[in-house]
Amino acid sequence: MQRIYAFGGGTADGSASMKNLLGGKGANLAEMSSLGLPVPAGFTITTEVCIDYLAGFEEQRGLGRAPDMPLPDGLMDEILEAVGKVEAIQDRTFGGETKPLLLSVRSGGRVSMPGMMDTVLNLGLNDETVAALGELAGDERFAWDSYRRFVTMYADVVLGLHRTRLEALINEMKTSRGVTTENELTADDWKILVPRLKARVEESLGTTFPEDPVEQLAGAVRAVFRSWNTARARFYRKEHGIDDSWGTAVNVQAMVYGNMGDDCATGVAFTRDPKDGAAFFFGEFLINAQGEDVVAGIRTPQPINRLAQGVDPSLPTLDELLPEAYAELHRIHLVLESHYGDMQDLEFTIEQGRVFLLQTRTGKRTGAAAVRIAVDMANEGLIDRPEALRRVNEGHLNQLLHPTVDPDAERTVIARGLPASPGAATGKVVFTADEAVALAETGEPVILVREDTSPEDIHGMSVAEGILTQRGGQTSHAAVVARGMGRCCVVGCSEVVVHRDGSFTAMPKEGGGSWTIRAGDTITLDGGTGEVMLGEVAMSEASLESSGLDTLLEWADEAATMHVRANADTPADAETARGFGAQGIGLCRTEHMFFEEGRIMAVREMILADSLTERTEALEKLYPMQRSDFVGLFEAMDGLPVTIRLLDPPLHEFLPHTDAEIDELAGSMRVPASSIRAQVERLREFNPMMGHRGCRLGITNPEIYRMQVRAILDAALDARERGKIVTPEIMIPLVGVVAELKVLRALVEEEGEAVFARRKARIDYRIGTMLELPRACLTSDKIAEYADFYSFGTNDLTQTTFGYSRDDAKFLQTYIDPAVAVLAADPFVTIDQEGVGQLVRMGTERGRAVKPDLKVGICGEHGGDPASIRFVNGLGLNYVSCSPFRVPIARLAAGQAALDA
Amino acid sequence: MQRIYAFGGGTADGSASMKNLLGGKGANLAEMSSLGLPVPAGFTITTEVCIDYLAGFEEQRGLGRAPDMPLPDGLMDEILEAVGKVEAIQDRTFGGETKPLLLSVRSGGRVSMPGMMDTVLNLGLNDETVAALGELAGDERFAWDSYRRFVTMYADVVLGLHRTRLEALINEMKTSRGVTTENELTADDWKILVPRLKARVEESLGTTFPEDPVEQLAGAVRAVFRSWNTARARFYRKEHGIDDSWGTAVNVQAMVYGNMGDDCATGVAFTRDPKDGAAFFFGEFLINAQGEDVVAGIRTPQPINRLAQGVDPSLPTLDELLPEAYAELHRIHLVLESHYGDMQDLEFTIEQGRVFLLQTRTGKRTGAAAVRIAVDMANEGLIDRPEALRRVNEGHLNQLLHPTVDPDAERTVIARGLPASPGAATGKVVFTADEAVALAETGEPVILVREDTSPEDIHGMSVAEGILTQRGGQTSHAAVVARGMGRCCVVGCSEVVVHRDGSFTAMPKEGGGSWTIRAGDTITLDGGTGEVMLGEVAMSEASLESSGLDTLLEWADEAATMHVRANADTPADAETARGFGAQGIGLCRTEHMFFEEGRIMAVREMILADSLTERTEALEKLYPMQRSDFVGLFEAMDGLPVTIRLLDPPLHEFLPHTDAEIDELAGSMRVPASSIRAQVERLREFNPMMGHRGCRLGITNPEIYRMQVRAILDAALDARERGKIVTPEIMIPLVGVVAELKVLRALVEEEGEAVFARRKARIDYRIGTMLELPRACLTSDKIAEYADFYSFGTNDLTQTTFGYSRDDAKFLQTYIDPAVAVLAADPFVTIDQEGVGQLVRMGTERGRAVKPDLKVGICGEHGGDPASIRFVNGLGLNYVSCSPFRVPIARLAAGQAALDA
Repeated sequence: MQRIYAFGGGTADGSASMKNLLGGKGANLAEMSSLGLPVPAGFTITTEVCIDYLAGFEEQRGLGRAPDMPLPDGLMDEILEAVGKVEAIQDRTFGGETKPLLLSVRSGGRVSMPGMMDTVLNLGLNDETVAALGELAGDERFAWDSYRRFVTMYADVVLGLHRTRLEALINEMKTSRGVTTENELTADDWKILVPRLKARVEESLGTTFPEDPVEQLAGAVRAVFRSWNTARARFYRKEHGIDDSWGTAVNVQAMVYGNMGDDCATGVAFTRDPKDGAAFFFGEFLINAQGEDVVAGIRTPQPINRLAQGVDPSLPTLDELLPEAYAELHRIHLVLESHYGDMQDLEFTIEQGRVFLLQTRTGKRTGAAAVRIAVDMANEGLIDRPEALRRVNEGHLNQLLHPTVDPDAERTVIARGLPASPGAATGKVVFTADEAVALAETGEPVILVREDTSPEDIHGMSVAEGILTQRGGQTSHAAVVARGMGRCCVVGCSEVVVHRDGSFTAMPKEGGGSWTIRAGDTITLDGGTGEVMLGEVAMSEASLESSGLDTLLEWADEAATMHVRANADTPADAETARGFGAQGIGLCRTEHMFFEEGRIMAVREMILADSLTERTEALEKLYPMQRSDFVGLFEAMDGLPVTIRLLDPPLHEFLPHTDAEIDELAGSMRVPASSIRAQVERLREFNPMMGHRGCRLGITNPEIYRMQVRAILDAALDARERGKIVTPEIMIPLVGVVAELKVLRALVEEEGEAVFARRKARIDYRIGTMLELPRACLTSDKIAEYADFYSFGTNDLTQTTFGYSRDDAKFLQTYIDPAVAVLAADPFVTIDQEGVGQLVRMGTERGRAVKPDLKVGICGEHGGDPASIRFVNGLGLNYVSCSPFRVPIARLAAGQAALDA
Repeated sequence: MQRIYAFGGGTADGSASMKNLLGGKGANLAEMSSLGLPVPAGFTITTEVCIDYLAGFEEQRGLGRAPDMPLPDGLMDEILEAVGKVEAIQDRTFGGETKPLLLSVRSGGRVSMPGMMDTVLNLGLNDETVAALGELAGDERFAWDSYRRFVTMYADVVLGLHRTRLEALINEMKTSRGVTTENELTADDWKILVPRLKARVEESLGTTFPEDPVEQLAGAVRAVFRSWNTARARFYRKEHGIDDSWGTAVNVQAMVYGNMGDDCATGVAFTRDPKDGAAFFFGEFLINAQGEDVVAGIRTPQPINRLAQGVDPSLPTLDELLPEAYAELHRIHLVLESHYGDMQDLEFTIEQGRVFLLQTRTGKRTGAAAVRIAVDMANEGLIDRPEALRRVNEGHLNQLLHPTVDPDAERTVIARGLPASPGAATGKVVFTADEAVALAETGEPVILVREDTSPEDIHGMSVAEGILTQRGGQTSHAAVVARGMGRCCVVGCSEVVVHRDGSFTAMPKEGGGSWTIRAGDTITLDGGTGEVMLGEVAMSEASLESSGLDTLLEWADEAATMHVRANADTPADAETARGFGAQGIGLCRTEHMFFEEGRIMAVREMILADSLTERTEALEKLYPMQRSDFVGLFEAMDGLPVTIRLLDPPLHEFLPHTDAEIDELAGSMRVPASSIRAQVERLREFNPMMGHRGCRLGITNPEIYRMQVRAILDAALDARERGKIVTPEIMIPLVGVVAELKVLRALVEEEGEAVFARRKARIDYRIGTMLELPRACLTSDKIAEYADFYSFGTNDLTQTTFGYSRDDAKFLQTYIDPAVAVLAADPFVTIDQEGVGQLVRMGTERGRAVKPDLKVGICGEHGGDPASIRFVNGLGLNYVSCSPFRVPIARLAAGQAALDA
């Protein structure tokens, strides 16, 4: 078993495919070296060695032995042999009194764990080699500064003496010299200090600081192995789902210096612009500097060339200062991008005019850049279109679709809730829908804060920039409506308590503190993270007009086997959805029309009617309103199918709750308020989610469904008369027993025939049902006989399959906590494949077994979730339907799912 | 195709197996005749003839023809040939001037439709034969009375002249003679009247009354055919699920007369006593009377012998008056019972000393009689034990287990609700549990009337004779608790509105009227029918000590492959259950103990505790109480398994609701009432059925389950120390995700080991789970790994599979209405095999696929429903568990199910 893999000098033992054995960094260094790129030579000790070493270490610890242990037999010999190769390539000698080879020793796991594990730099320095280094650099101070850094780092990482113990000595020296920064200390100062540092090590630990470079190297390798098992590394792995058993590789590599003079530099570059994806070589550098200087921001880095917009003309660029080195770098960036087929983020150092590549990796990018790079690279032939589609994810599109909090902005997080609808919003707090409307009319941005929302809050939600609720889950009313509106929303924020006096208290579990926020105070919400922040926080705007998005989504549509429709309740929603590329309406919730001004009173009169005659009269008032809404929907969706669901919620949802509303209704209906109150009480339900709703209403109160069918088909004929192509689909909700659909299908057809006879015209339409109860899925073979199409209502199906009320499922936050991990994900966000998914599969397969051409879709919240889309694509569904603002994400996901199917 | 089947003279063309062709009556007459029993001779015209005739009739009506139609070609010739045979057997002549044969013409369908269809008696009388009949009977008045009855009946049934048109003439005659009853009219009076009746027929209809017996017979046969399709017959068939296409047979039979003198009699007899099943020949008769006289009750019938208890010594019996005829009847009853193998109800007539059997059928009987007869007959060898078990049904046992309203008692029904718990009760109305206790303490029987009940009403329910609720379904709290207590209960009585002022209004949909009932008024409930009645209504007591019941249930246990356990929450419940033969406890709901006096405060303190320390302190108060309850349970169930479910309901169910309760709790906890109110509000749930309950509590608040496990296992050790054999089974409720059970099983085991270490003793126990969510059934193959047993909670499984809240499912009354028929039965009463049953099957099969010896039971309400028991027996379940008072029914059903499997 090979334990050490060398790289450098244009060859390598390993390759990029060996990440498990060599770690990400080691594999990448090998790959770059094989490509002939100038990486500083070095070698990688495999993760297998680490695993063995740690196993032995744990065994020793179990026996009560000391917390260090020799390296495996013979390993040091192999290491020294590898060091020999490095010496040859780099033209340096390890421990040499001229041109000494100095080494870095770094960890490198299968997956990057930034900052979690240990590194030792400048290894190989001692009282002899430091002089040689000074000579080589022509800079004694540089050499001694490197030396003291090495001693401090080695003492901390390898010997276990906390760096503050040594920094105290440096501070003493600064005081005695009357200076404030280390940079002001001279080479002579460091010459005095280094022996003091070593003496402090000996005093504290009882061991001398190793002068022998070989001993230094062995200690550093052991320390890096051990750092895999520190508490902070273990915690990080648990948080990020990284397996404890993987271990880390150790990369030993020749040090190169960008700070050996003015023919030295160090920098970072991207093969394309990571902000907008523009296709030019982008990067920054500093002359005579170390890598950390670029990151630290003490000196302003300079652009490598003048291709970026807005480059300061007074700053010299790398192509001007070191044109040969720049040319080499330029060559390298082309090799890298064409080799990796993606935009690369690379780190380089120029040591005395010689370019070294320290690292390359796939570059992080904004959403806009991700889209543009993917489309450009496909057009350039660097990747194919399927790969372009795979390169863009939900997060990228969310950035394009919604404003987002600037990741670097300062913020005070006062509470965290569930991220229910993405985007960010700043505004003044209000506590009622009416206050929201009043304040918004003055032009102020508004954040609506509620304990929870109900359909009566919709007018307030529609004018608010963001919505925050104390209660409710990912599919609570607030969450569903906000996503439908593309409005930023945080729900289920139990760290907030809304008071009746027009204020709320925020007490975050993490971070502590307590705030009282009053109406009119400004807060910022992040609907992508669930953070609630004090005051205004800097954010970046949505940039939907990203270059390439339309193209990318067209490619997605071409690849997809499923259509993407939208859940849209109004003509305005429908137009938004069509703008985002929806291929029809998959769910129009007719009841959302009921809450509009001037309608709710008629709805209430209908519900509270004492006789069928009175109810019919009230329904007649609603009929023209519904008809005209439907005409608008059909017109907006000209040529595309429109699925309209008949009334679904329990009737009590429409009744008034406050005394004022009850009095108003009583006046309008000319009945005593007490009688209305009694009716409201009579209709109250213990578990409304499982109550008298959906098709159960259609069975007990057929007159409501009859009115709706009439409005739909009259509207369809109206729209057709205006030249539109109309495909209405009438959907019966909450069917659990085939007889429900049988009875209601007959009712729809009877009413349809009456409309057609009256209009002396016919129109083709379909009748289908929602599968949203376990029993419907279980008996889908029966139900299919009466259905032209199925649409899975996975919100309710998830509720009933798990027995979770989405409005009460606060315990889900505990369930998905990685420390508890009862569930891997919130099943209201990503479909539960194991349970709910079985029912979706069963419903689809059993339905199609009796009706092979049954059209099947999904219109729950999961219709906009990529993982869920991938799952239902695998089941052969015909379409997904989601809120308008999710349509682009769903189109992309549908395309990706089809490619991977 | 044979159209006519003759019977009489000891032979018959047909038999009892030909009910579809000959109708029930015709088939039975044929059977009796074949047995050599003396039935009056006659013949049956088949149902097929009726179907053909009516089809032709409908066709004619479709063509606008007259509403009568000739009989099929040749039928009349066959009829007359059959009449000839009757003449020969009976020694009479049809239309003869001496010894005239008179006939009855009756309908007779496959299933009896009492009073729904037409009959003509005394057919064959005319101005000539009437004289001959008078001579034969030696009673001219008898002949003319028969004649005028025939004319009136024939005019009504065959000619369509309503009988009131002719009765007017009889009334005129009574007036002119100065008499008040028809009995006072003489033969001469009838001689004057009969021609007047015929004249009135001719005036009204324009046709003469037929004198020709053959013409009379043809008309009567046609009329009986037509009567199949009257509106009332159609309605009756719809109500009783009888197929319209079956048609009726027509039975033409020689008339025999029990009223031709003192050597004549008529009566009804049973082969055993139908009240208690005692094995002797039981019956009543009247000398010189017609069958209707026995039924009408004008004369007091006499016992046929002196074998029954309490026979009036002054009344002569049949064996004394007509000993030869009695001997013949006695012979007949033995033949009949041994032939049919069941207790028979027979009608007989003695004409001039000659016994005729008019009818025999399986006799209706009380529950007590059913049990005794079944056991006796099996012991006598008349039937085998399986048949004995099949002879007794749920209704019979319900009569034994609960008092029932006397079916003949006068009553005023003021409302109808759902029959939730069988039995009947009379008492004074109270509206709160506390009032119930106070009034019951004075010795008054109490009926508790509530809008609905909650666990806080239990003390009132336990002292009430009966419970009536306005809301809730068959598995609402009231229904479940009442059944558990064996208490009469009517729920979901929406015809009642409970007012806050201590009264309720009742407005029945059927029958009309409106009543206001105040506290202290007396009402009667029938929990078997759902009727609410005014005042006290006569009832018969429960008679559990029925002779033979224990034997029958032992036979059931021997036959059964499933055990029957009880749902019992307290030691008292457990003792009741054991008395009824329960083979263990299948479900102990630990939370029911929480509501008892002195505990609820500790429970509330536990729930509202601010810190884990305070919660633990409150739990420590509950621990000894739970432990001592469990000891009681284990002792009562010595030697049998006891399944204890850990806490299931959402915590807010235990919190106070009224201001007074909140204040009391605040005082006890020394916190402000406002703080408690806020907590109550915070814990409120929109859909508590699907909320934070069951194992979800166990995950978020493990300290509660830990306390319960400790109490269970300490109690088990305590009971064993007292010499009991204890098998505890700890059941985790509401598991939907395998990780829930995995985590909680580990918790139970950890707590168990701690108990065992402290006690220095171990006890075997099992850990299992309820399958009550669709997801649990779907993933049962995963869950089984951590379960020693499964118990299907079919109440919740029905709720979630259908998406029905049992407390809100008023619409189910519409769904099961036969006119709507969305569902065949209430799925909360009888398991829905098609949907819920699939999940039960899946849960069982998938669980046993990975753990073949997995013990599986059912502990929902369905565990006491015979149809559901039959279903789960077919799935191979190991046991059912039901409320103690259902145990006998479940034992019987389990035995029956195994026999039929």
